[in-house]
Amino acid sequence: MRSAIRNGELVREDQAVLPVTYREVQYSYSVYEALRITDSHVVHLDDHLKRLKESCRAILLSHPFSDDLIASSLHALIEKDGIANATARILIVGGKSPLFFITYTDLLTYPESYYSEGVGVTLYYGERFLPQAKTSNLLMQYLALKEAESKGAFEALLVDRKGQVLEGTRSNFYGISGTRIYTAPDEFVLSGITRISVLKAAEELGFEIVYTPPTATNLHMFDSLFLSSTSMGALPVASVNGNPVKKDKWDAIHSICALERKWE
Amino acid sequence: MRSAIRNGELVREDQAVLPVTYREVQYSYSVYEALRITDSHVVHLDDHLKRLKESCRAILLSHPFSDDLIASSLHALIEKDGIANATARILIVGGKSPLFFITYTDLLTYPESYYSEGVGVTLYYGERFLPQAKTSNLLMQYLALKEAESKGAFEALLVDRKGQVLEGTRSNFYGISGTRIYTAPDEFVLSGITRISVLKAAEELGFEIVYTPPTATNLHMFDSLFLSSTSMGALPVASVNGNPVKKDKWDAIHSICALERKWE
Repeated sequence: MRSAIRNGELVREDQAVLPVTYREVQYSYSVYEALRITDSHVVHLDDHLKRLKESCRAILLSHPFSDDLIASSLHALIEKDGIANATARILIVGGKSPLFFITYTDLLTYPESYYSEGVGVTLYYGERFLPQAKTSNLLMQYLALKEAESKGAFEALLVDRKGQVLEGTRSNFYGISGTRIYTAPDEFVLSGITRISVLKAAEELGFEIVYTPPTATNLHMFDSLFLSSTSMGALPVASVNGNPVKKDKWDAIHSICALERKWE
Repeated sequence: MRSAIRNGELVREDQAVLPVTYREVQYSYSVYEALRITDSHVVHLDDHLKRLKESCRAILLSHPFSDDLIASSLHALIEKDGIANATARILIVGGKSPLFFITYTDLLTYPESYYSEGVGVTLYYGERFLPQAKTSNLLMQYLALKEAESKGAFEALLVDRKGQVLEGTRSNFYGISGTRIYTAPDEFVLSGITRISVLKAAEELGFEIVYTPPTATNLHMFDSLFLSSTSMGALPVASVNGNPVKKDKWDAIHSICALERKWE
């Protein structure tokens, strides 16, 4: 059986459990991070620890687990189980007796065809509560993704009351038009770790970033659309709600993806 | 140690736990009910089982646990621990391997002074996702209540984008004006078990129910405001954001509360 971390201690994975009687478990008062481990190296660890703290701050969650404890626990877990490649998950639950876990699964990757042929997305109308915090309140994302998958799509994009397409259920979202990349301002979305690298890579490749999100009605006008996430890198979108979209800038998306991955 | 139910089996309370590696735990894809047990009798059990099913339906959660299994499990738990008075909690987590728990705590009651002197409430601007489903996605309610308590208030009322005061974080909400009681339409709020009884009691006492919610700007115009919940019964509001509100109809609120409790 795999190992896990509970409150800084190495335990068996089946001991990484939440008491249903604990109030903060009942209220989903918790934050998390998903990280890539490649060749036993934790990708962008500092950025993930920083965002974890930002998520805590956004929901006023205080806990005693230092960055050093979290990092050393993660490294102890990697060493104990001899982890080479994996997706790790850090979870912190707030309250009077805060809880801290690290667990891991096989490295989440996607087939090469997703990158060469693009993926389908659907639109889901709904707004996240406190979009900048990565919390366990994921019911809307769960349902949106379930609906997308039932239609054969890979991801659902969340559309706000103004019709703005802000982000995916587990990804950030972008539209390319000429030499410009359009995406939602940071304050309306989860500030993806990969999003930061993707935007930096895009600028390095000569694109200008415009912090205005695409809308549900103008998606077909972009030269190309794409997603980003820790697991995806940068992934082109082939269709929205079953309707094909333009693929004029897929070469650029592939270049952004390659450059972003190089920085890991 | 107390006992609990896990998937229909009696277990020790410390075995009522959720694996952090289970996807539906990570996404808070779960529904719950809180029930009163008085003199070993489960109050409004059928109504709670019905609402549990409605919550499941609202979030497309299917599970194999029948009403009969849930009811017989609850009764087995009451018998095992000799429970006379308690607040019980049923939790169902969806996914490929659905989970079902029943746990309990001391009966949640409030001091008599809350009824004679009323309670303070604060206003919190935010809208629930799928308001008719009683799910574990309670972060907004948690933060709203935390803010209320930090200001010395007992409950936070959720106000929507139109300024309508729809419900509390763990209660329904009403304004009395003359012989009319104003409250949000069922589709915008959690349909409280006690709300049904309270509205029935109010009608029996000669009130007309108007399904229009009070608004943040007209609360001071009502003759009285009150809350209801399984644990509270009907509870008068003394102040909103620190400002006293009228108490002209508190006798009526106390009568509604007494009549509602009589039906248990």
